[in-house]
This record gives sequence, C-alpha cells and structure tokens, in this order.
Amino acid sequence: MPNAKVTLVSGMQFVAGADSGHAVVMDSTPDVGGNNTGARPMELLLMAFGGCSGMDVISILRKKKQNVSRFEINVRGEKAETAPHYYTDLHIEYAVTGKDISEEAVKRAIELSLGKYCSVGATLGKAAKITHSYRIIKED
Amino acid sequence: MPNAKVTLVSGMQFVAGADSGHAVVMDSTPDVGGNNTGARPMELLLMAFGGCSGMDVISILRKKKQNVSRFEINVRGEKAETAPHYYTDLHIEYAVTGKDISEEAVKRAIELSLGKYCSVGATLGKAAKITHSYRIIKED
Repeated sequence: MPNAKVTLVSGMQFVAGADSGHAVVMDSTPDVGGNNTGARPMELLLMAFGGCSGMDVISILRKKKQNVSRFEINVRGEKAETAPHYYTDLHIEYAVTGKDISEEAVKRAIELSLGKYCSVGATLGKAAKITHSYRIIKED
Repeated sequence: MPNAKVTLVSGMQFVAGADSGHAVVMDSTPDVGGNNTGARPMELLLMAFGGCSGMDVISILRKKKQNVSRFEINVRGEKAETAPHYYTDLHIEYAVTGKDISEEAVKRAIELSLGKYCSVGATLGKAAKITHSYRIIKED
C-alpha cells in the first residue's frame, strides 16, 4: 500500500517522503504565510499526471521503435471557482520531436495511456474532464 | 490557469516544472526501464494531499493559538486491483505534537480542511473514499 509521510519544517514548508525514498518540498505563497521554497500541492497533481502519462507514452513509442529525440508534456488545469477549488478540467498536450515519427504510433500510445494504463490520469479523471492534444515536431 | 511542463531527461526520468518555478524529478523502477532517481507519479498524489491538508490544518491551529511543536501527516493509498490502478481509498492521519493542544481545535481544523478548503483532497476525493484519523502527542 503506497504511503507518504509529510512533515512540517517551518512556516508553510512541508517535506514529503514516500516509499521510493525520494522527497519533495512543498510551500505556499507569502500572502498565506509561506516562503515559496517549494511547489504548491495542487501543482504536484499536474506534474504527476504529466510524468505518469509521459512514462507510458515514451515506453510505448520505444517499443514501436520510434526515434524520439525530445519529449515534453504540458498539463493545464482549471479549478472550480468556489472552495475547495478542485480541478474540474485538465488538458494534457504531448510534444514529440524526432525523425520519421509515426503519427499513428503517437495517437495510439496516448490512447493506451489515457484509456488503460495511467493511474494518475484515472484517479484525476474521476474529478476532472480530461482532454488531450499532441504535436509532432519533425527533425531532419 | 495552473500549468506544469514535464520534460523527459533520459530513461524514464522526467523533470516537471510549474508556475511557482519549482521542479520535481520523477522516475520509475528499473524493472520498467527507470533508474529510481525520483518519486513515482502516484506517490506525488499522496504527498500533495498531505501537504495541502497539512497547510490548512497548521494554519487553522495557529489561528487558534495552539502551540504545535511538531506536525506530521501520513497518507496511505489503496489502488484498484486492475489497470489503471487508480486510488480507490485514501487514509490521512494527522499527528500533532505540542503542549496543551486542544483536541477540539484539531478535530475542527481537520474537518474544515477535508470538508471545505483542501483542493487536493477535494480532487482526489472524487475518485477515492477518504478516511482520516489523528493523534495528539502531549509535550510537557
């Protein structure tokens, strides 16, 4: 069962550690008592979604022998207007750079990630409507 | 609109940056092509939940003049057995250490965070059943 331990350091700075042994610093903005020494918790959800789906997609593209030289994922969130301001909409954009990248392979990899494999997307997708897009940047 | 940019570094290592300017490294385990250089994306969801609710709770406890010397949050997740293995259950435990801590204040702070303020909890709570507990550790 995955587990995270989150400890208050000072002000609004918290350090979180998890089973993998890695730690992440979170903090808030000065207007709510923070010192901006780390990411906002809500940002971590977007980062996690990009990382999770990115791992699926690059893994599938490698299996399909696609020659990817650069891969970026942009995740944008829209929050409910009233508290508790949860994410209502998420858009994930995949930018794949490489030589002779098959559009079909990219489309299929994204479909498999968002439809079948990505645990973070499946969790967040119960709260937010997820849309996606992709760009293929050709290299000579 | 919150935004995160997630870039593949190598292997399964991704670096995510967000609007606040802070970056987080994610990676997977060697059995799926990673090198374990950073947290798993699914771990970030637990960390984010602990950080988000922790910020609410400590902020309320400070307003209520509670003398907290140490504050830890443990978040445990349970995943669906079949892919995409989203979180079905989350348990968050708050451990508040200090002198003359009011149990009523702790209970109320947690209620306000989970019921009203915590955006991460409200997002994840659409997917997972959230339960909570608390411990008050008395200091002389």
